[in-house]
Amino acid sequence: MNTGIFISFEGIDGSGKSTQAKRLAATLRDLGHEVVHTREPGGSVGAEEIRSLVLEGDPDRWSPESEILLFTAARRDHLEKTITPAIEAGKIVICDRFADSTRMYQGISRGDLRAVVDQLHSLMIGREPDLTVIVDMDPAVGLSRALSRQTSEERFEGFGEDLQTKMRAGFLELAREFPERCEIINGAQDMDAVAADILTVVKARLS
Amino acid sequence: MNTGIFISFEGIDGSGKSTQAKRLAATLRDLGHEVVHTREPGGSVGAEEIRSLVLEGDPDRWSPESEILLFTAARRDHLEKTITPAIEAGKIVICDRFADSTRMYQGISRGDLRAVVDQLHSLMIGREPDLTVIVDMDPAVGLSRALSRQTSEERFEGFGEDLQTKMRAGFLELAREFPERCEIINGAQDMDAVAADILTVVKARLS
Repeated sequence: MNTGIFISFEGIDGSGKSTQAKRLAATLRDLGHEVVHTREPGGSVGAEEIRSLVLEGDPDRWSPESEILLFTAARRDHLEKTITPAIEAGKIVICDRFADSTRMYQGISRGDLRAVVDQLHSLMIGREPDLTVIVDMDPAVGLSRALSRQTSEERFEGFGEDLQTKMRAGFLELAREFPERCEIINGAQDMDAVAADILTVVKARLS
Repeated sequence: MNTGIFISFEGIDGSGKSTQAKRLAATLRDLGHEVVHTREPGGSVGAEEIRSLVLEGDPDRWSPESEILLFTAARRDHLEKTITPAIEAGKIVICDRFADSTRMYQGISRGDLRAVVDQLHSLMIGREPDLTVIVDMDPAVGLSRALSRQTSEERFEGFGEDLQTKMRAGFLELAREFPERCEIINGAQDMDAVAADILTVVKARLS
């Protein structure tokens, strides 16, 4: 009898979180679990449309406040249509980024917005993952990995090493803020070792 | 020397508010004022895109909470890109619907959401019109007028007389809640008389 659980993956660009989220999903399926592998922004029909609205076009066309509102609208839809039904059906939800990404990206680029992000989250989302896997990585390494990828959505990759360094510090601070749900994984190891560490913390939560 | 002022028009469907907003804009221009005539949802490039996202497709595809977030994102963009710059430039902004419409439409269809709408407004918008013209109208008359119009955006017109009756009561209650900015205009008069009454209250605010 599986119990529904909500796992998010967070980390700086190029930390390997997306690769590891995908790999964890495959491993858990092999172990017989029902897994829903999803991502943010997006993860439901409506949320993907909002994602396109935010990420396409001129990066400056939305103010940080409008962007936070759009990401929160997308998250609300994603939660209602994808995440909550899956958890209620006893499935394991693996989500590549969740609210913590908004806390970091918006909060670090403009510090006064962190409180706004948190208030908006309490008011309209009110749900945290049961487990947040933070894949920790040296920003120089993460950045070179991120820049080597091809993508039409450039928004998340217009950041330099300085911002990635702040972001890394932000994720580590987040783990101190929410110790009950956050697990820091050393992303500098080889991929198999990272995957093994993640599986260990996930199994501990499942049992 | 004109002073920037922000005027919203509210009222039930078919109350004549859009016609009157347009007419007021023309009259004020004739009197030598610089006028920006806009509407919600929409009123800026980004907000119009969000409007399409909300109003097109299956009416049930967004939950009330997601819809409120999208309307608030659109309003934030509208305020930043259209309303605030115009007011700061000393213009008269005439807006067909503003936050009060969200208070009414969302709050009346699900009473528990009114507090959420208000909290979201304080957090992310924080601005009310200087003057809100509420065009008051018997719902049976308003509904027959609204239904006689052709429109591809059916969302606001899927309401019956019962809901319009609640909406009318809601707008009158709103005028009691915000007496300093709300003016109730009798929309049952002929159009010239309605326009004259509106011009009187607007001139009082401008002087």
